[in-house]
Amino acid sequence: MGYRHPERDQIRIEDVLSALGNPIRLSVIRVLDAGGEHNCTSVLGILGVTSKSTMTHHWRVLRESGVVWQQPSGRENLVTLRRDDLDARYPGLLDAVLAAARTDEAA
Amino acid sequence: MGYRHPERDQIRIEDVLSALGNPIRLSVIRVLDAGGEHNCTSVLGILGVTSKSTMTHHWRVLRESGVVWQQPSGRENLVTLRRDDLDARYPGLLDAVLAAARTDEAA
Repeated sequence: MGYRHPERDQIRIEDVLSALGNPIRLSVIRVLDAGGEHNCTSVLGILGVTSKSTMTHHWRVLRESGVVWQQPSGRENLVTLRRDDLDARYPGLLDAVLAAARTDEAA
Repeated sequence: MGYRHPERDQIRIEDVLSALGNPIRLSVIRVLDAGGEHNCTSVLGILGVTSKSTMTHHWRVLRESGVVWQQPSGRENLVTLRRDDLDARYPGLLDAVLAAARTDEAA
């Protein structure tokens, strides 16, 4: 039994913006966007986040806003950025957000 | 003595996304983007918001994230969308967010 996710047409921009409006969650999106297959633990490792309970909250926010798919796979949860859905529903939004994160980082 | 606002290069994308990731604050931005001169009271009237204390919080979030200018003018506060700053720092972001809000509304 997997997690509940909103369908593409159930996604709401307020939820997406609120989900992305957090440094850890924004970092997660950048890791996922860079490609490769990730599970929750591997993303935590890349980000150097050690609090699993804090991340449980962040994963739920990202999942329930429609930003990521989170799917059980064996003893792990695979996570994937829902780029197709976000690009289809909100053209240009994700790219603008990712570019903005790079701008801040370079500042 | 006016309010404190971040300079353009002090704006951070997490703060902007978090500020916009709320239905009332997103509605405020849409009103301001539609043009015309607005003070806090006139925006409240357009949105049908009656709780002034709630709005005080929202104005602070919008101001401190760098999304709006809020400037005392007589007994009122003029509010202006910082489109120039946001477009310069994060090209395409504000337009993508406003388009997304229209998409949701049409759904």
